[in-house]
Amino acid sequence: VANHTIEEALQRARAKDHLSREAFPGHRYRRLTDDTRGWTRGTAVFDDGTVIAGYPHIGRLLRLEGGLSEHFAGPFWAEEKIDGFNVRIFRHHGEVLALTRGGFPCYFTMDRWSDFMDGAVLEADPDLVICAELAGPDNPYLVGAPPFIEEDVQLFVFDLMRKGAPSFVPVEVAHDLIARFALPGVQVLGRYGPEDLAAIQQMMRELNGRGSEGAVFKAEGPDAHRSKYITSASSMADIRDTARHMPDLPAEYFTGRLIRLAAFVDEEGITGQSAAALREELGAAMLDGLLEALEQYRRHHRVFHSYRCRLHSRTAAERLFAQIGEHSGHIQVRQRRLEREGPDWILEFDKSFPRITGLLGNILAGGMVFD
Amino acid sequence: VANHTIEEALQRARAKDHLSREAFPGHRYRRLTDDTRGWTRGTAVFDDGTVIAGYPHIGRLLRLEGGLSEHFAGPFWAEEKIDGFNVRIFRHHGEVLALTRGGFPCYFTMDRWSDFMDGAVLEADPDLVICAELAGPDNPYLVGAPPFIEEDVQLFVFDLMRKGAPSFVPVEVAHDLIARFALPGVQVLGRYGPEDLAAIQQMMRELNGRGSEGAVFKAEGPDAHRSKYITSASSMADIRDTARHMPDLPAEYFTGRLIRLAAFVDEEGITGQSAAALREELGAAMLDGLLEALEQYRRHHRVFHSYRCRLHSRTAAERLFAQIGEHSGHIQVRQRRLEREGPDWILEFDKSFPRITGLLGNILAGGMVFD
Repeated sequence: VANHTIEEALQRARAKDHLSREAFPGHRYRRLTDDTRGWTRGTAVFDDGTVIAGYPHIGRLLRLEGGLSEHFAGPFWAEEKIDGFNVRIFRHHGEVLALTRGGFPCYFTMDRWSDFMDGAVLEADPDLVICAELAGPDNPYLVGAPPFIEEDVQLFVFDLMRKGAPSFVPVEVAHDLIARFALPGVQVLGRYGPEDLAAIQQMMRELNGRGSEGAVFKAEGPDAHRSKYITSASSMADIRDTARHMPDLPAEYFTGRLIRLAAFVDEEGITGQSAAALREELGAAMLDGLLEALEQYRRHHRVFHSYRCRLHSRTAAERLFAQIGEHSGHIQVRQRRLEREGPDWILEFDKSFPRITGLLGNILAGGMVFD
Repeated sequence: VANHTIEEALQRARAKDHLSREAFPGHRYRRLTDDTRGWTRGTAVFDDGTVIAGYPHIGRLLRLEGGLSEHFAGPFWAEEKIDGFNVRIFRHHGEVLALTRGGFPCYFTMDRWSDFMDGAVLEADPDLVICAELAGPDNPYLVGAPPFIEEDVQLFVFDLMRKGAPSFVPVEVAHDLIARFALPGVQVLGRYGPEDLAAIQQMMRELNGRGSEGAVFKAEGPDAHRSKYITSASSMADIRDTARHMPDLPAEYFTGRLIRLAAFVDEEGITGQSAAALREELGAAMLDGLLEALEQYRRHHRVFHSYRCRLHSRTAAERLFAQIGEHSGHIQVRQRRLEREGPDWILEFDKSFPRITGLLGNILAGGMVFD
């Protein structure tokens, strides 16, 4: 929670060079490029003074036992956590805009949000900022998707904020608003207390069994505590989806997920037959991705991942793709297709991973490595 | 191979602050703390002018196909690579001294070398520098050992150098000297040419099957090319032996070994039943180490590894232990035992790993992680 006003944060960010100029078509704003005085990276301050706070960091519990009682004194809600990308949706001068977690315009969400929710809530309550996850196989940002979404994407509302405030609408108020306006909320798993450890552990085993990412726990009351807890199925999926371009990610991406996975297995207890299956699955998640990369390199002389997504407007697709190119860092982006399909546009592009491509090229050419 | 004289290297090292003062009892020297003008880190220059070059870097092939023909035009020897620690043994003013790879006095080797070889060679040829690997479960430096050494340590001579020269004695001359003086040489696997790819791949499968670290290939002739090639069994053993203190090592330690392992599996071909077994073994190597760390933390409130080694002299044991403490960086070293056993002294100590200890402490106390 921010103890400083946005003016104090802006002053500090200016001094530390943590501000950048960004724009939606027709709306200019400043973006916090780093956490500053309690305001999160991704906070947007429009030229008319409207402030959309960045989505706050949620701490991760690696263990429910001890963790729940340490962080929750009273009742809290458990909600399913969705493995997608985080956006903030709000109304600004009569238009619905969306920001990515980092605070850039999300052209994909702005093009697609009305497929999943009714904008009436933002007209009725124009102060509202809807925090949602877009998830599914046909998304422009992420490799991997929840197993229960078979095509395209879906939108899951999991929090509400208010313009100008770097804090959440209390969870029970959010539940009411989500119900009243029939917003596509994440699954609410129940209301618990810190004494319900065994029931929550059992629930986590069930979530893990169906490949869910995990849960977020939200204490009742204003600005109250939140923690997340991630299943081993989710850590495993992350490893499997990215092992193919291992050297293009920080190595800690993998070791961090291995440690989370071990903590989950230790707490939830996976033994016997399923223990061997889990180990084989983990070994395969690591090894098969790299072997697939070798196969792909042999056929295409590069290692890449193909993305595909559906948009209503060609202009949105073009803006989205241009932005992905600008933000891709050392990853190379190449458009493959932008074509009409019925009323929509299908955008397809590749991301090529230079480090694994270079390494495999060197290996297959018989090169040497000094390490 | 160094194109510069040691005087040029010393001048450069002085300018770049890559020299440190070290001493054996009675013998002072300067040590290169970084590679300098073709002279390797660990080069020692005694005050009387004697120069012991650092052990050169050997490039790693990640693939025999392509690699052998790329780097070898004519005949070369294959020798087994031993998973131990690298020392250089030589005679200096009537005493036999030993240096670690980094160029520090190796008190363990100086105490134990005469158990494994006859010093006559160093009297007959006082210019000689014997490059050897000490390997076995009872060693003061490494977790893990070759599976065929059941207790204590063994010494394996794998190269010869000459004082003052940063290059190897030609491989065929070294083989002759090793045979003539009955030195405990590494296993010579054969003389091959680049056309013997299939035979060498078959040999690597056999080495892998018995848990060998791999092979070093040495072209015939003076100063000729060398490369090493590592089995998947060795990468797997490294992962298994160190997963317990994963955050205390650079994360690249693990991802690098995963990539080597994949390259080996891809080239040597492991399929069917053994493919599933390999994946289960890999998953277990990662996961079980971390689960063991959790178990150890619960019992001892820290994660540590116990080392044990045998020395003839109490003074050598004390010097060795003092040096290990000085070089342990963020790892905490604690002596457990220094006691007579027959004619020898047994030194036992622990290394505690602060990062995994702190992380597990936080996890088990219900703490949160922001990542």
